[in-house]
Amino acid sequence: MKLHLLPLGITVEGSGADTVLSILAREGLEVASACGGRGTCGKCRFHILEGNAAPPTDAERRLLSGEELGRGIRLACQARPAGDLKVYLPATSLVRGQRLLIEGTWESPPLDPPVKMRRFEPWTPSPGSRVRSDLALLLPGEEGAGKKALKTDLEGLRELSASLRSGRREVGVVLRRGELLGTARPDAGALGAAVDLGTTKAALFVHDLATGKAVSSHGFANPQARYGEDIVTRMQCALEDKGKGRQLADLVRREIDRALSGMLSGTGYSCRDILEVVVVGNTAMHHLFLELPVEGLARSPYLPVTHLPLEVKARDLGLSLHPAAVVYLPPPVAGYVGSDHLAALCATRLAEREGPCLLLDIGTNTEVSLQVGGRVTCCSCASGPAFEGMGLSQGMRAGEGAVERVEVGSGGELEVRVIGDAPPAGICGSGILSALSALLKTGALEAGGRLRPEHPGVGDKDGEPAFWLVPPGEGGGSGLAVTQSDVREIQKAKGAVRTGVEVLLAEAGVSYSEVKEVLLAGAFGSYLDPLDALSIAMLPPFPLERIHQVGNAAGAGARSMLLCEDFRRGAEELAGSLEYLELSTYPSLALLFAASMYLTEEGVSRAKARLKA
Amino acid sequence: MKLHLLPLGITVEGSGADTVLSILAREGLEVASACGGRGTCGKCRFHILEGNAAPPTDAERRLLSGEELGRGIRLACQARPAGDLKVYLPATSLVRGQRLLIEGTWESPPLDPPVKMRRFEPWTPSPGSRVRSDLALLLPGEEGAGKKALKTDLEGLRELSASLRSGRREVGVVLRRGELLGTARPDAGALGAAVDLGTTKAALFVHDLATGKAVSSHGFANPQARYGEDIVTRMQCALEDKGKGRQLADLVRREIDRALSGMLSGTGYSCRDILEVVVVGNTAMHHLFLELPVEGLARSPYLPVTHLPLEVKARDLGLSLHPAAVVYLPPPVAGYVGSDHLAALCATRLAEREGPCLLLDIGTNTEVSLQVGGRVTCCSCASGPAFEGMGLSQGMRAGEGAVERVEVGSGGELEVRVIGDAPPAGICGSGILSALSALLKTGALEAGGRLRPEHPGVGDKDGEPAFWLVPPGEGGGSGLAVTQSDVREIQKAKGAVRTGVEVLLAEAGVSYSEVKEVLLAGAFGSYLDPLDALSIAMLPPFPLERIHQVGNAAGAGARSMLLCEDFRRGAEELAGSLEYLELSTYPSLALLFAASMYLTEEGVSRAKARLKA
Repeated sequence: MKLHLLPLGITVEGSGADTVLSILAREGLEVASACGGRGTCGKCRFHILEGNAAPPTDAERRLLSGEELGRGIRLACQARPAGDLKVYLPATSLVRGQRLLIEGTWESPPLDPPVKMRRFEPWTPSPGSRVRSDLALLLPGEEGAGKKALKTDLEGLRELSASLRSGRREVGVVLRRGELLGTARPDAGALGAAVDLGTTKAALFVHDLATGKAVSSHGFANPQARYGEDIVTRMQCALEDKGKGRQLADLVRREIDRALSGMLSGTGYSCRDILEVVVVGNTAMHHLFLELPVEGLARSPYLPVTHLPLEVKARDLGLSLHPAAVVYLPPPVAGYVGSDHLAALCATRLAEREGPCLLLDIGTNTEVSLQVGGRVTCCSCASGPAFEGMGLSQGMRAGEGAVERVEVGSGGELEVRVIGDAPPAGICGSGILSALSALLKTGALEAGGRLRPEHPGVGDKDGEPAFWLVPPGEGGGSGLAVTQSDVREIQKAKGAVRTGVEVLLAEAGVSYSEVKEVLLAGAFGSYLDPLDALSIAMLPPFPLERIHQVGNAAGAGARSMLLCEDFRRGAEELAGSLEYLELSTYPSLALLFAASMYLTEEGVSRAKARLKA
Repeated sequence: MKLHLLPLGITVEGSGADTVLSILAREGLEVASACGGRGTCGKCRFHILEGNAAPPTDAERRLLSGEELGRGIRLACQARPAGDLKVYLPATSLVRGQRLLIEGTWESPPLDPPVKMRRFEPWTPSPGSRVRSDLALLLPGEEGAGKKALKTDLEGLRELSASLRSGRREVGVVLRRGELLGTARPDAGALGAAVDLGTTKAALFVHDLATGKAVSSHGFANPQARYGEDIVTRMQCALEDKGKGRQLADLVRREIDRALSGMLSGTGYSCRDILEVVVVGNTAMHHLFLELPVEGLARSPYLPVTHLPLEVKARDLGLSLHPAAVVYLPPPVAGYVGSDHLAALCATRLAEREGPCLLLDIGTNTEVSLQVGGRVTCCSCASGPAFEGMGLSQGMRAGEGAVERVEVGSGGELEVRVIGDAPPAGICGSGILSALSALLKTGALEAGGRLRPEHPGVGDKDGEPAFWLVPPGEGGGSGLAVTQSDVREIQKAKGAVRTGVEVLLAEAGVSYSEVKEVLLAGAFGSYLDPLDALSIAMLPPFPLERIHQVGNAAGAGARSMLLCEDFRRGAEELAGSLEYLELSTYPSLALLFAASMYLTEEGVSRAKARLKA
């Protein structure tokens, strides 16, 4: 039986003998629960959207109301599927949700990587033989005779003869699109790496190019952060001082080297087995990684140096891989729409889906793409770092001690969930969205974003209105509050995203209800609860079942580009046909942005109506 | 009127009002003369093979016999053409013969270099424009839209934006076969360089790729010589110590940089304007230049690492040219037949000539190619360094003070000509050939190579028989002798060349008289007097008019490859179809070599006849 999980958009399999909890656990998806699955805490609620489960157990009848059971609410530790199920289970219901951020929901494309290894038995030439070179010994036929055009990499050639004369019975020769890169161990496969290079974090995936199988995956914090958390500061660094531009590039290159080396330790492989790397990232990361000048990116009209794909020798970037390894960088789409978004578009096959449909890659910068009739238009929204917990009075990244979820209990009281069961140390992006959603429900927060001073939970923090999620002194801490400024920051961030969606829909003449699918990608897009995003009107009122979270689609796209020539070519073609819409030149942008900051759908639509009038 | 000069194979133009001497002088070909063209010394003799000159002057009637005039012998300072003339004038008759070694007799191919510069007027993008990148500003149309595959060089990209933002009215964009190399000064043209990298000497040529015009040419002594005069010693160096391999490569790369920089000083160009370099050379030079391992070259079956053409970024070789400049190396043919010979084959269009025909590139190693029915077979003969004056008791390179010609005077006495009118300091390759030819005529030397002790000119030097060309004490010097060992060295050298020719002809079943043309290339091949080569049976008895000296054909081929894609493709195709014959595996090689050492045609043919019997 299949369980299709929304908004994650992934499908897992299980039998009717297992509970949903155990089926998910087997896939590494651990559902939050306080009683260890004994059916006593009621925390593991989930929502059946389609299909049937076995009848409710006694525990479920005890902990859920008849109305809840009627709507399809069940307990994961009790319910067993009675057939295929479509289930709503936000990542925030999962303990190990973080895992998704790296793994994504990747479907391997047909295996056809540019890099291919051929195994040869070298033979010793006799003086009378007509073999023309060491290379010809390894390449019989047309290529060996020099009659077919074959390029050779100089570094690869340098090591060729030694491999040949090593006395090995078999030599692996690595070719990449008509270029001989050199030799490789015939017993190992040639490896490839995909890197999703983000401003804050990078995700790396290593695959065996012969089988397509994943060898290892890993994430690291972008070490360029020491020159500035945001890309603007880092670009400023590079602009002021060419040496610093070099340092920024070196930092991230060395970290990639280190990460790959660590990922392969104990696998029987080494970095020398890596023959191709696909790097996707936002355009600033792309430029800083390559040490391309960022003058054009730093001011309007925010032009990248190039809009074309690039192939660079890894050695030219100082990466310590196979001496002839190639780094492939898909084309940047625009100054603020990077190859990571292109990769996400391709991984989700947005252009081929039934349209109209949307893809949002939510982060410090949010890229939004709309596909209508096969044509994709994209834009970039400066959503700022609030979703990553930055710029909030007590914000933090989603990690140990971060409030990740706030719910309104049955008695109207707020229940706060902390990552790692640690005492609350701050609040992360999904937590603040969830908190605002809860505050709106309890009436502590107005649609316009004002914390109501008269509401019992609203107090004061450092002279401004604040809602104390955890009062000071509770548990010995200094407490945790959502301040009026925090609300404003989130309003700006979610308003920017909403504005991007509004402009794309308006330009294409597409109404909310016509949108067939809304895909949320990226770390934050995969971790937020879409219900919260709808509750605070960050997204237009799309039906919940149309919203899918697709994990690290950029990483998935990079992996597919690594393994499949066709996929890569498709990405390059899409980049050439993609329409980019520059929001800053859109008329009445400021007014639309102001309307988009309302925290209720009613608020937004009223303000928009005034705008039209 | 046209003067076709043999064996140089070049044609010069002049009028009937000019003497042959002045016509040649205008082309930089200064004929040796002692009286300054006053018709008194008789040194400027030349031979009219076809056509008519104005009747002999009084001076000619005085200095030349009726028989000589009847055979077409004339004085260059007196004779004036009466129509087109075919003239025999060996390079040894020229004072500035050396000039030919560099310039060769090059005919420019149809101009179609891989590197092309396009001029663009950059325009400043407005925020509303749909330009996608700095690059797109320079590339309108399909390439700009990213719809046509265009590769870009990372280093070229790095400087692109700065050029664009420099405020210049025009920007030169340099493309090479679908790859954007970067920008160049639109007022200058893109330059290219051709390098013929020899073991002893290198010849460099710089051309404007937009017009094909030669900008500068230059030669330098290969600085690797400090690690050994011959390639075997240098390869041994590289084999023993990888660091030395690096030094050998660096030495020659730095010298190329220096030479190009010097060549361009004062021309308005700089090395940064050079976008492509074609390097040809023997296979050892090819490998040492590229720092490829020479293990395979050092022992039988003498395999190069690759038999394919290579394209390398100049920066990867440490050359200081345009940041994205490309170095192209045509394919080596075999371990001892290099891309220089391939270039010479192409420059002389040997494969398309009426066959059977031969091309000999005479040097320390002599490559011989025979074309029959469009099919070219080549071999390599270890002729050794004697032709370059090395290994002789008083040998020296062809330079100031070197005896370059020995003639038998009308009284049977020997006349010695020295380069630069300096006192004789030694003897060069063409000089020793000429000396042996003269000694054979005077009877001092036997066909088997023995100096006759009973001949009055034969004395003793350091305990062995020697012929004193300049007796000790004459002119205050210690004299100049051809020793018995010198004769043996030349016998071995010329025997090796003759053996190569014999084997190729025998394998193809071609008789001497069937050979339509014999082309002599390379420094020594261009400078020796073919009459001398015939006199000592270095070449089979080919009719003199079938022997053409083609100068530095390798350099000419490299220049043509630089300027013409088709020519380059032709070279690569020829390399693929060329047959290589390994002499060392040829049956009865030693006996054939022994026969080839005889210094008279009669001697050689008798020994060959014994061999067959």
